[in-house]
Amino acid sequence: MRITELSETACRDLLARLGFGRLACSYQDQPYIVPIYFTYDRNRDSLYGFTTMGRKVEWMRSNPLVCVEVDEVVSHLLWSSVVVRGRYDELPNTPQAEHRLEERALWWQTAYAASQIRSGPHPANAVFYCIHIEEISGRRAIADRSESSVGLFHAQRAAREK
Amino acid sequence: MRITELSETACRDLLARLGFGRLACSYQDQPYIVPIYFTYDRNRDSLYGFTTMGRKVEWMRSNPLVCVEVDEVVSHLLWSSVVVRGRYDELPNTPQAEHRLEERALWWQTAYAASQIRSGPHPANAVFYCIHIEEISGRRAIADRSESSVGLFHAQRAAREK
Repeated sequence: MRITELSETACRDLLARLGFGRLACSYQDQPYIVPIYFTYDRNRDSLYGFTTMGRKVEWMRSNPLVCVEVDEVVSHLLWSSVVVRGRYDELPNTPQAEHRLEERALWWQTAYAASQIRSGPHPANAVFYCIHIEEISGRRAIADRSESSVGLFHAQRAAREK
Repeated sequence: MRITELSETACRDLLARLGFGRLACSYQDQPYIVPIYFTYDRNRDSLYGFTTMGRKVEWMRSNPLVCVEVDEVVSHLLWSSVVVRGRYDELPNTPQAEHRLEERALWWQTAYAASQIRSGPHPANAVFYCIHIEEISGRRAIADRSESSVGLFHAQRAAREK
């Protein structure tokens, strides 16, 4: 297997395409990870997301340093991964913020369900946030020629097991 | 969509079955995430992994508080996620440590490739580690009856796109 660095453009392309990853925040040096859906805004070079009040939000208000990771794993020998170091920023809970996120309407359901809210499309405890990207890096693994048959085997097996 | 808490047994079953997730560590309250492969040891209630020297190891030596997240996402409406709060502990670089991990031999290749080491099966900068689980929790989402046709649509589309 050979690992190469992804260009910053390739990293941003992966963020824009996947729109799903994991967010880590930290409070008193105890890290915490949650899966998130987000939209990537190329003009502002920022990620936009939605959640509901909880421990994660309290921690990020206290310490806005966060990390986001996205990956696409086809097999042990064929994967890409991007890591973002960023800064959490809360947005006002307005129709504009809602509008920015509506194109990924499905993931609202995740946040809604997490808080078991059934009260309507704009809950009072909705938290819209933005993560300003401060550093981005990524890696891609591809199989060496000698490994490619092994990689193909695993990819095929993974596909069969779906 | 309805979200339910996973029992601790179900959480541990998911850890054991997936063996792949993301590890967050933190240094001076800056969190950092890396994808990891691991084995779960039920008797010791710990995760075992292998890496090579780098920023992640330096940070965890300085601050052993870590978080591991694993998830299995079929669609927006059908997923499971487990979060572990744990403590990083380094193991001696011995054949015994190697043996414990050999059943997941494939993932050695990831760590090897990350350091571009080609020098043999037991590199000098190999770092074997254990994460003692201190807290574990998980959630599972399932579609409501009204959503199940939507969930099925997405699962089928995801399968077609593989």
